[in-house]
Amino acid sequence: MTTGSPARAALIALDWGTSSLRAYRLDAAGRTLDTRHLPWGIMRLPQPLQDGAATTALSGFELAFEQACGDWLRAEPSLPVIACGMVGSAQGWKEAAYLDVPVDLQRIGTLLTEVRRDGGPSLHIVPGLIQRHGLPNVIRGEETQVVGVMADPATRSADSVLIGLPGTHSKWVSARRGRVTHFDTFMTGEVYAALRGHTILGRTMADAASADMAAFERGLKVAGAPAGRAGVLSTIFSTRALGLTGELAPESQADYLSGLLIGHEIAALADMLQQQGELPRIVLCGDPALCRRYIQAMQHYGLGTPEEAQNATERGLWHLAVCAGLVASPPTE
Amino acid sequence: MTTGSPARAALIALDWGTSSLRAYRLDAAGRTLDTRHLPWGIMRLPQPLQDGAATTALSGFELAFEQACGDWLRAEPSLPVIACGMVGSAQGWKEAAYLDVPVDLQRIGTLLTEVRRDGGPSLHIVPGLIQRHGLPNVIRGEETQVVGVMADPATRSADSVLIGLPGTHSKWVSARRGRVTHFDTFMTGEVYAALRGHTILGRTMADAASADMAAFERGLKVAGAPAGRAGVLSTIFSTRALGLTGELAPESQADYLSGLLIGHEIAALADMLQQQGELPRIVLCGDPALCRRYIQAMQHYGLGTPEEAQNATERGLWHLAVCAGLVASPPTE
Repeated sequence: MTTGSPARAALIALDWGTSSLRAYRLDAAGRTLDTRHLPWGIMRLPQPLQDGAATTALSGFELAFEQACGDWLRAEPSLPVIACGMVGSAQGWKEAAYLDVPVDLQRIGTLLTEVRRDGGPSLHIVPGLIQRHGLPNVIRGEETQVVGVMADPATRSADSVLIGLPGTHSKWVSARRGRVTHFDTFMTGEVYAALRGHTILGRTMADAASADMAAFERGLKVAGAPAGRAGVLSTIFSTRALGLTGELAPESQADYLSGLLIGHEIAALADMLQQQGELPRIVLCGDPALCRRYIQAMQHYGLGTPEEAQNATERGLWHLAVCAGLVASPPTE
Repeated sequence: MTTGSPARAALIALDWGTSSLRAYRLDAAGRTLDTRHLPWGIMRLPQPLQDGAATTALSGFELAFEQACGDWLRAEPSLPVIACGMVGSAQGWKEAAYLDVPVDLQRIGTLLTEVRRDGGPSLHIVPGLIQRHGLPNVIRGEETQVVGVMADPATRSADSVLIGLPGTHSKWVSARRGRVTHFDTFMTGEVYAALRGHTILGRTMADAASADMAAFERGLKVAGAPAGRAGVLSTIFSTRALGLTGELAPESQADYLSGLLIGHEIAALADMLQQQGELPRIVLCGDPALCRRYIQAMQHYGLGTPEEAQNATERGLWHLAVCAGLVASPPTE
C-alpha cells in the first residue's frame, strides 16, 4: 500500500530493554521498513558530554533516542513514536504504571504514558502488567509481544492460549479470548548465567566449539526422573559430580546444565498444566536457538510441539499504536 | 587423663577446606587442647617467597602447614597428623580417592592417603565418599563430620539416622548401623550467594542491621504453598516482585530469599522422607545461626526438631585416627 520513494512511514516503534534498544520504522500497513539495533539499554545509556561544570542539555535517554530515530523524525517530523520495555520502569525514562491482570489486551493500548520532548514528538510508553493474586508477579515488555502473538487471527480466536517467552527471565502468559488471565516467571536464563559465571559449577566447564545437544537432552530428562525429585538446588550439583566421575566432558557441562534448568522449568509447567486439565494452544516467541531448546523440552514433557511466532514485538507495538489512536487502523487485515 | 605442663598431645588434626584451615591439638583422650583458625584454604594458600629465579623449597601447602602446627610438632615431634577436606581433592596437596557408598564408617579410617614430608611426620588424608547410583554425588570433608556425629553412642545405635550438614553445599547423609547408605547434596548456600551477588535480585536488596526472621519465615512457607509448585526457578522472582509492590522492604529481601531457598530444600527433603516411610533420627551439624534457620524450616515441613551435634569435625578426625592406628584407642569411652 506504500507508494513514493523512499517509502513513507506511519510509526516509529522502540523495543527498549535493559541491555539494548531496537528501533523499527513501520509503514501505514504495519510493515517494517527499517530496523536498527543499538547497545543503548536503559542500564547502559550513552554518556552526556561534560561541558565544563554543566552537562549538555541532552540526557542519556535523549542521546540514545536521537541515535535510534533522530534522522527518521527529521525526514518525517509528524511520525508518532511508541516504546515498550524497561524504558517504562522506575529506572527508565518515565515510569509507566503496571496494569492489573486479568486485563483485556486492547485496553493496554489505551493507557500509554506520554513523555513530552522539547522540539520533537512525544514518546508513548506501553504499561507493564502486574499480577497480585498468589505471589505477585510483573511483566514489562513481554505484554507487547503477547499483543503481537495475539494479533494472529487463529491465535486470537482460540479459547485458551499459552504464550511462552524464553529468555533471561522466561514468561509464560495465559490468555483467553483476548484477555491476559495469568502469567508465571522463571529466572532460568539469569540463574544459568549466575551458576556458570559465579559458582563452582563453572570452574570445571570448558567452552565448546558447538552446542552439545545430547548433553542438553541428558540434563533435560533429569527433572522428570527419580533423581529430579530433590529439585533443582540438588540436581545442578550433578554437573560437577558427572565431571568428577569422568561421565561428562568439560565441553559438555554447560549444555547439560542448560538442559537441567530448562527441564525443571518445563517439567513444573507441564505439571501445572496437567492440574488445569485441557492443554491450551501453545505459542513460543523468542531467540530461535533458545526456542529450539524449549521445544525439545516441551516434547519430552508431553506438551507437544508449539507454534513459533515471528516479529511479535513490532507487530505488538503496531497494534498497540492502533489501539491508542496514534496511527489509523489499516483498511484491511 | 593428661598430666604435665603444658599438657601432652596425642594427635594433630586438620580440617582443611577450600577457604580456610582449622588445626586442633588433641590429647590422648581425644579432648581439644588448642585450636587455630587460619585463612589458608586450598584455593588461597600463602605464596612461597620468590628467591631470584627460584621459589623457596616450601610449597604453599607446606607454608600453611607450618603456620598451622609447626610449633606444636617442634615441641612434640612424634605426633601423628590427620587431615580431612579439600586438601585431599585433585586441587589439594595429594588426591585421596573417594570410597564408594554404601560404606562402613570404620572402614574410612583404614584407607587414609599418606603425604610424606621431608624432615617431619607424614600427613594422613581422609578419603571422600562417592555415590554412583542415580545421579553421581560426592562428599569430601563431611564424611569426617558424619563419623564425629556417629561417635555418640545413642546416635550410633539408632537404626536409621539422617545427618544434615548445612553450608555452601548442604549435605544430607543417611546412615544405618554404622554404615553410610545414601547422601544428597543441595547447593543452597552457593546459589543464595550467586543470586544475591550476581542477579537482578541483589539490586533491590539493602543490608540489614539484623536478621529479619519474619521475612525468612515468609519465604520458608512458599515452597509448600500453591505458589511453590512452579519451583524455585520461579518463586525466587517474588523477591523482586514483592519489593516492586511495596510488600517487602529492601532490608528484608535477603532473608526472604534465604527462606525461599532453604524452604525448597527442606520441602523436597521432607517429600523424599515421606516416600520412604519411617522418619529417621535427624541430627544437624553446622554453623549455629544457619542451623537455627534449618530447624525452623524442618519444624514447618513436619520433620520435627532435630538434635544438634557439637565439635563433630574434631571428634570425627580423632575417631578416624583411632581406626587408622595413628593413636591408641583411649582406655574408656
